[in-house]
Amino acid sequence: MYQVIEGGVAAASGFRVGHTAAGIKYRERVDMALLVSDSSCAAAGVFTRNVVKAAPVLWDRRIVREKGTARAIVVNAGIANACTGQRGLGVCGKTADCAARALGLAPEEVLLASTGVIGMDLPLDRICAGIGAMASDLQSGPVAGHRAARAIMTTDTSPKEAAVTLTLDGKRVTIGGMAKGSGMIHPDMCTMLCFITSDCAIEQSLLQQALATVVPDTFNMISVDGDTSTNDTCLLLANGQADNRRIDRKNEDYEAFVKALSAVCGSLARQMAADGEGASCLFEVKVRNARSDAEARILAKSVVTSSLTKAAIYGHDANWGRILCALGYSGVDFDPDRVDLYFSSEKGKIQLVKDGLALDYSEAKATDILTAPKVTAICDMKQGDHEATAWGCDLTHDYVTINADYRS
Amino acid sequence: MYQVIEGGVAAASGFRVGHTAAGIKYRERVDMALLVSDSSCAAAGVFTRNVVKAAPVLWDRRIVREKGTARAIVVNAGIANACTGQRGLGVCGKTADCAARALGLAPEEVLLASTGVIGMDLPLDRICAGIGAMASDLQSGPVAGHRAARAIMTTDTSPKEAAVTLTLDGKRVTIGGMAKGSGMIHPDMCTMLCFITSDCAIEQSLLQQALATVVPDTFNMISVDGDTSTNDTCLLLANGQADNRRIDRKNEDYEAFVKALSAVCGSLARQMAADGEGASCLFEVKVRNARSDAEARILAKSVVTSSLTKAAIYGHDANWGRILCALGYSGVDFDPDRVDLYFSSEKGKIQLVKDGLALDYSEAKATDILTAPKVTAICDMKQGDHEATAWGCDLTHDYVTINADYRS
Repeated sequence: MYQVIEGGVAAASGFRVGHTAAGIKYRERVDMALLVSDSSCAAAGVFTRNVVKAAPVLWDRRIVREKGTARAIVVNAGIANACTGQRGLGVCGKTADCAARALGLAPEEVLLASTGVIGMDLPLDRICAGIGAMASDLQSGPVAGHRAARAIMTTDTSPKEAAVTLTLDGKRVTIGGMAKGSGMIHPDMCTMLCFITSDCAIEQSLLQQALATVVPDTFNMISVDGDTSTNDTCLLLANGQADNRRIDRKNEDYEAFVKALSAVCGSLARQMAADGEGASCLFEVKVRNARSDAEARILAKSVVTSSLTKAAIYGHDANWGRILCALGYSGVDFDPDRVDLYFSSEKGKIQLVKDGLALDYSEAKATDILTAPKVTAICDMKQGDHEATAWGCDLTHDYVTINADYRS
Repeated sequence: MYQVIEGGVAAASGFRVGHTAAGIKYRERVDMALLVSDSSCAAAGVFTRNVVKAAPVLWDRRIVREKGTARAIVVNAGIANACTGQRGLGVCGKTADCAARALGLAPEEVLLASTGVIGMDLPLDRICAGIGAMASDLQSGPVAGHRAARAIMTTDTSPKEAAVTLTLDGKRVTIGGMAKGSGMIHPDMCTMLCFITSDCAIEQSLLQQALATVVPDTFNMISVDGDTSTNDTCLLLANGQADNRRIDRKNEDYEAFVKALSAVCGSLARQMAADGEGASCLFEVKVRNARSDAEARILAKSVVTSSLTKAAIYGHDANWGRILCALGYSGVDFDPDRVDLYFSSEKGKIQLVKDGLALDYSEAKATDILTAPKVTAICDMKQGDHEATAWGCDLTHDYVTINADYRS
């Protein structure tokens, strides 16, 4: 069992973090973060499946696959270092060299992540100056973690953090993380940028398996706009400083670690969805009694990505026909004449559809329920016993405003 | 060879059409159309692949598959007769009875189509009164066709019509059609509602094959919002009154007919995309030199459906990174370091990307080119010799406004 605690990426023992305003693209705004572990970490990662992969994704993937250990992560916002070819890969190498020198590490112990505009070159001089400034002022604890979470934001309106503790082998183990959204969010393997640290002692292969286990039901179940980014990266570092008996097989400790990790990832995923570009609410879609986990996930994601459904949620309009329509074109076969639909929120719960047909419900009550910061659509397929939950947001005028003029 | 002519669904010999304001859901607005052939027609149709199929789709599909002939089509806007179960199918039967009585036909010679809100019941009394009014005032020619095209509109801002003539066996053959959009448009087999008539003499099986041949490159290549409707229907009636030598095999006449039909369907598809809900421009995506037709289509549709790309087009922002990103998550594998990207419009043409990297182009010139009623993105994959074109529209504030409050 785990307990939710305050804090983020610097909550676990032995991790320190820094941030700075390096002036990479934004002016007078923090735009870089540096995360460092006092000792070597097992490093796990999942990355975008987009064919077009940003240079830092290629850099990290090689290190995670070939070495599986790391000590530091350098993150910048403003420029994504994507579609920059060999030049972009060169910048990655030089950034790692620069961080390695500043921290007394080897370059291949340094992971990298970038977010922002595609196609622009990173200004290496400012990146290196930023690393220098951050390396000289690394701090641990919730305040430092919080500032780092702010520094990696682009169109996000709030930082995303989560942390839990659990007891393994009598030792207190902490897992904490930070993430950023909030457009080009439709993760296929993992989301935009997410960094999780733990002081758990665990084999790298099991750390990677734990991450791969929780991602399908957390980050891969959110969508802001259906666009899978070129930079999606989720990194998980574990430095073993909790001094628990090293997890080296799938025992009870492993299962407890996976549950706690899932809580952190789930929280960060929901925070990202709720802060989707222009969002006025968190839109949750629960699919129940599907024939398999895979079908439940496909159905839930089809609804949460439907532009028409998302616009109706924005208008507090209980337009359930759009939900049934989105279930119908998901690619999953089902009997539409068995489906039940409900809406729920802090304002109450209402059933709209029974066995595929509209009930004589109160539109006024439905609209009231939909006027809430978190709105849930429940789709009971009545064809099996598998379920899934997806998270997204409404489609608003602000989403259009933000993305019609993002680069200027 | 074919010639484009004025006119629509009543352009071909022997077809007459009516329209009326039946008050089905809208007030003081035409909302029904009736199309009748003077003689029996070979009937072809393609329908939505959404698991949730509206009652009229089930009605038409059975007639097209089991009989392959028809004489009339009854269309209403306002209510979709979708998610209405057995009650909805009952309304279909009674509507066909009513039209059959008014026209002196058998009920199974009457095809049906509905568009509008999902989940509401059709008011049978008003439908039948509307049929009665229309049956007594059927007309041929472009003006009557144009009025019918207006009568089937929902959120469309303009009617969609196209017609061509061709000469087969020394005889003048006409093909004409009308269609409607303009939300829940992401056809999977065919689009929202489309009705095409011809006086060509052709076997029903070849008529169906001709329709199935042209749909993948026309209606199935458009998208307004990624939502595949429950009501998508495309019907093609051919009554043989052109008196050409009956097309009974895939000869030169068949090929000429397919080309002409493709021109009509392509025109209607582009009109639908350009009039997508809230659209301020037609967005065309041409993919060149892909490895196969199928991959070219997937790549083009991935770009044309990307919310981020569509919002950038609305903002006249040459944000090519979003296009490369959308190609990358399409599911098609390719080498991103070979891709070239261009934008073109009536204002000119500009290359933005060569071999996956940004060129030093003029943003001012690119923005000027993007400020046009029709904007084309050209993606040269440089990996084969297959191509495809997709049509959509930009994502605007008006799309959100229309769909946040569609039902009220």
